[in-house]
Amino acid sequence: MNTKATEFQNHTYRKCLETLTPNLAAELLRYGKSKPGVISLAQGEGDLPTPAFIRDAAAKAMSDGFTNYGPALGYPELRQEISTYHARVFGHNVPTNRIFVTPSGTNAVHMALLSILNEGDEVVAVTPIWKNLIGIVEIAQGQIKDVPMDETDGVWSLDINKLLNACSTTTKAILLATPNNPTGWVMPLEDMRTVMEYARHRGIWVIADEVYSRCVYDDVRAPSFLDVSEPEDRLFIVNSFSKSWAMTGWRLGWLIGPADSESRIRDLSLYEVLCPPSFVQMAGVAALRHGEEFIADQKIHWKRNLDLIMDRFSRMPRIRMARPDSTFYAFFRVEGETDSLVLAKRLIDEAGISLAPGVSFGTCSAQHLRLCFGASEATIRDVMDRLERALI
Amino acid sequence: MNTKATEFQNHTYRKCLETLTPNLAAELLRYGKSKPGVISLAQGEGDLPTPAFIRDAAAKAMSDGFTNYGPALGYPELRQEISTYHARVFGHNVPTNRIFVTPSGTNAVHMALLSILNEGDEVVAVTPIWKNLIGIVEIAQGQIKDVPMDETDGVWSLDINKLLNACSTTTKAILLATPNNPTGWVMPLEDMRTVMEYARHRGIWVIADEVYSRCVYDDVRAPSFLDVSEPEDRLFIVNSFSKSWAMTGWRLGWLIGPADSESRIRDLSLYEVLCPPSFVQMAGVAALRHGEEFIADQKIHWKRNLDLIMDRFSRMPRIRMARPDSTFYAFFRVEGETDSLVLAKRLIDEAGISLAPGVSFGTCSAQHLRLCFGASEATIRDVMDRLERALI
Repeated sequence: MNTKATEFQNHTYRKCLETLTPNLAAELLRYGKSKPGVISLAQGEGDLPTPAFIRDAAAKAMSDGFTNYGPALGYPELRQEISTYHARVFGHNVPTNRIFVTPSGTNAVHMALLSILNEGDEVVAVTPIWKNLIGIVEIAQGQIKDVPMDETDGVWSLDINKLLNACSTTTKAILLATPNNPTGWVMPLEDMRTVMEYARHRGIWVIADEVYSRCVYDDVRAPSFLDVSEPEDRLFIVNSFSKSWAMTGWRLGWLIGPADSESRIRDLSLYEVLCPPSFVQMAGVAALRHGEEFIADQKIHWKRNLDLIMDRFSRMPRIRMARPDSTFYAFFRVEGETDSLVLAKRLIDEAGISLAPGVSFGTCSAQHLRLCFGASEATIRDVMDRLERALI
Repeated sequence: MNTKATEFQNHTYRKCLETLTPNLAAELLRYGKSKPGVISLAQGEGDLPTPAFIRDAAAKAMSDGFTNYGPALGYPELRQEISTYHARVFGHNVPTNRIFVTPSGTNAVHMALLSILNEGDEVVAVTPIWKNLIGIVEIAQGQIKDVPMDETDGVWSLDINKLLNACSTTTKAILLATPNNPTGWVMPLEDMRTVMEYARHRGIWVIADEVYSRCVYDDVRAPSFLDVSEPEDRLFIVNSFSKSWAMTGWRLGWLIGPADSESRIRDLSLYEVLCPPSFVQMAGVAALRHGEEFIADQKIHWKRNLDLIMDRFSRMPRIRMARPDSTFYAFFRVEGETDSLVLAKRLIDEAGISLAPGVSFGTCSAQHLRLCFGASEATIRDVMDRLERALI
């Protein structure tokens, strides 16, 4: 008998890691990247590099000596600049002791949920939602209960009563993304107020992922839970530099919470990363201070791509989608296709385009595909040609 | 009655956050930084910026477009370069599917422990140890059982039988740092072999923090658990770019684990940060490829500072310390002082120097202070003068 083999067989990992729901989108993304010649619009980012003024700020900060440890929740300069940004763009004064710099928006959601959930706590999530937010709940040992939105003629809506009725006595938090990745749905201000009042009354936390708050096409910013909340509310708002400032690879975001969460988030930061990267934060300061022109230009570019897609889709009879008001995603169904995973795999193999399968965003979107139109116009045209040929 | 106040009173956070042991070192560090004119040698870093060749590599990578999302466990280029580094410096072939890039060494410890611990699992930790490693266990809901080293005439040693005997039926992992922060103790190779064989036999994980493996004064590198392990062992080895390449503010590290941990660490990375920062990883490649001269120069500088400190300490009759073989820390007792926290606070207030209190590294070092001598010679001289005046 081979004793050693027996000894080695029993690696045991944390229980919640063994029961994670599969991340089909991440698996398919890796599959698509492994195949040469495949154009990927499966991830939430454009194909332009970060603007030069932000890169220059990072390089300057490196030379200026911002290569040492900083505070666990970020430099005071950046926390202040985020506060200033919120005052200017959102019209709300958020003091710096409610603002926590995090190494990505993803990490901000993680910090928020890990700071409040105990094993078995229920999280009511509005779906479709980015699969990783579900995974974040799972590694914090929470239980997801999903509240699917409804789609009618490609238009997504949420029955607010369905959301409130889903909350039980074990509900610890409501999790939602508005503007919504992948649908582009934006929660109306009045619904936000209803959710916040209900949550306040019931002692339930609200975790609002607002990373697309600047990616709305008819306004400067989307409605925010900041508009309907009070400083002490059980509310975490997640934001990120990734989308609006084209900084996906920088891993920089921020979290707004009640003042009494500051010491908890600081502890989590200390024991998970110690502090956010130093010079990267100075790039964040530059982005907030000088980024409005870039945001406006980028929106014009995305809007043009969306125009192009709507035009091309109108000539692809099997595609079903209404024009989204927000985000840089086209989230569409293909008539006659019932399994988005099969379809997405086939598009990689036969059409050379990688899109995200809707099933990974929730069961209510099992037939959908998500296409990120942050890429160049030429790439979008190429993808439209390939898609048209594949969906005849 | 003010109903609203009542509603707001019951913010509830995750249980393990409410029972964290206090981080006295972090609190005192913030206190020291808040006072003008105080020289801080309380953190584990020098006062030089990161070398220009590493900063240049980051700036170039930014310009080359490394500003987008990368893979969750790091770019293949960096994982390969880390493998090459281990082959060259340590003489071991570690395949890239056992190497996981993490946003800091701290995060690598966190990933390792969170991937294996369930609530209540016992972690046997050799102390003194950096307080944050204890905190990492606590937020992973583990229970620390500490095994104190012994100090005789300033020389630290570990009774290996004490360590093995401390392991119980609920022990999930042994946690140790070698070379040791703060004592400079280096676990002998034979003891590593004993620990690894015992752990293998008992099905216990070993988490070895080896971030100071290149900071030994008589050799190119310290003994490593890589020297005594097999690829399938329940072993995580933690490393970091922070110390050897002066990159503390970059937050870049790596974790080596068994091949079957790859998917678990990938899931944790996906749901905590999504991926490490992109261009920062290219700086890591440059550091590993071209950093040996810098490491050698830095060691000469630290050794000179240590010579200076030993000389000055020899003329401070109350100070007790033997010369450490490793790390850039002087970890010393002051005769007649029984409370390191009181002493450290007094040194901030009266002498204008901030050092880390030994009590935060474990009860066995409650009378010690940790001084990081990574700073310039002039700063070390200044601190020695201030210390001498304060300890008359």
